Amino acid sequence: MTMLSPVGSGFDLSSVDPSSTPGFSGGKKQGKKAFDKGGAELADLQERLFADSRAGGTRRVLLLLQAMDTAGKGGIVRHVVGAVDPQGVSLHAFKAPTDEEKAHDFLWRVRAHLPAPGSIGVFDRSHYEDVLIARVRQLVPPATIEERYGQIVDFEREVVAGGTALVKVMLHISPDEQKARLAERLDRPDKNWKYNPGDVDERALWPQYMEAYQVALTRTSTDSAPWHVVPADKKWYARWAVQQLLLAALRDIDPQWPAATYDVAAEKARLAAT
Amino acid sequence: MTMLSPVGSGFDLSSVDPSSTPGFSGGKKQGKKAFDKGGAELADLQERLFADSRAGGTRRVLLLLQAMDTAGKGGIVRHVVGAVDPQGVSLHAFKAPTDEEKAHDFLWRVRAHLPAPGSIGVFDRSHYEDVLIARVRQLVPPATIEERYGQIVDFEREVVAGGTALVKVMLHISPDEQKARLAERLDRPDKNWKYNPGDVDERALWPQYMEAYQVALTRTSTDSAPWHVVPADKKWYARWAVQQLLLAALRDIDPQWPAATYDVAAEKARLAAT
Repeated sequence: MTMLSPVGSGFDLSSVDPSSTPGFSGGKKQGKKAFDKGGAELADLQERLFADSRAGGTRRVLLLLQAMDTAGKGGIVRHVVGAVDPQGVSLHAFKAPTDEEKAHDFLWRVRAHLPAPGSIGVFDRSHYEDVLIARVRQLVPPATIEERYGQIVDFEREVVAGGTALVKVMLHISPDEQKARLAERLDRPDKNWKYNPGDVDERALWPQYMEAYQVALTRTSTDSAPWHVVPADKKWYARWAVQQLLLAALRDIDPQWPAATYDVAAEKARLAAT
Repeated sequence: MTMLSPVGSGFDLSSVDPSSTPGFSGGKKQGKKAFDKGGAELADLQERLFADSRAGGTRRVLLLLQAMDTAGKGGIVRHVVGAVDPQGVSLHAFKAPTDEEKAHDFLWRVRAHLPAPGSIGVFDRSHYEDVLIARVRQLVPPATIEERYGQIVDFEREVVAGGTALVKVMLHISPDEQKARLAERLDRPDKNWKYNPGDVDERALWPQYMEAYQVALTRTSTDSAPWHVVPADKKWYARWAVQQLLLAALRDIDPQWPAATYDVAAEKARLAAT
């Protein structure tokens, strides 16, 4: 069984099968069961991480999600991140930049939303839009795109050095699966609001997007901030896989309950006297 | 069976039994079962509310939580709000005001964190601290406290008029239950970090706090922004009761899936052609 490996040298996005389930040998039923078990551990580890931050710890986690439309970013947030105490999560969805954001360098708005110590931050899209749609739609000159890869690597090195475990995930679906998911949004009245005619326009640029992803993934996957491409045609698998990546990051931090900073016996006596 | 009623004329906080379960006739087991069922409805209603906001709707919900220490605000957020998609929640915990916040009027920082259309906002503490601890600890002159009740009523009227269903909850525990919960934080090493020696100092001011609550509740409970005092010695009951208040607010809004703003048949044809 293939494991889900980080993007390394020689990586070829076109060789990743979006319907595969690397690292998991069972089917949907076993996948959901494993997922439910992982949620409890994730919630526990996040609470420990939060407690650690109260005692001065600086560690935190940032899950960065990139994907083609309908790949399931929203489902990851709802199901994977939803298992964690809302007080321990800071979520930001990056849209097309505002005028104010455009007046700054492309990393400015990203810095403003980095998670605080003790929390799990989630970026629904990110600074990678500035080398993905910006490249495909030629929003800036090619030389600017070229510069950005290096700026991103430097920026992420700084973020990681500051105590953040950076989990970068591309949810990878096939064009056929996207077609089926868009069709469902058109078929179901309760899903119509999720459909945008622009989705079909972007879909027409699939090969260009895959090329932009291939370049971005290989230019910005580093030892300290690696990319993972998660096959996402099977929703249950993608959710389990992203949960595993978060669990691995948190287990690596291994946050511990902080020791009391006061005299426990003395406080017990004070409380008893009330 | 007594129902959980909003604070009205003649309300007397000292007559509310913190261990009672108004509106619920069963015990803990039935309470948890009812709670699990409510979570799914809450998540569904919030998604509809979010969809409505995408179509231009302005409705939103704000849950405002006030309580003595250990009354269970954190548990409400984790369990009640935790059932909702994190993308639909905006949470803010108000701490002692910063220097910047102190340089503005007391409602300034609160305005900055009001929820956006489509979301459920949660205030863990709020502008009521400015008539609770501020009154008990005499942080400002009595005349200033006196003015604030009216300012709060005016402010909340404006918030509600803007499309916000305001759910104001005081979680009400007994001094004995607080003592037991503080003792547990001292007894369990994994809970030591939650204990603060200052908690015992505040505890000594219990009667003054209850008097401040009594005044605040009766002066600021209005038809459009009523207070509910939720007995909170039984955690399962408090969670169920707050969930019911949120459900009532959302059922009253009754958000509907928005109709498509595009030609569904034409889009189906465009998609099929890709």
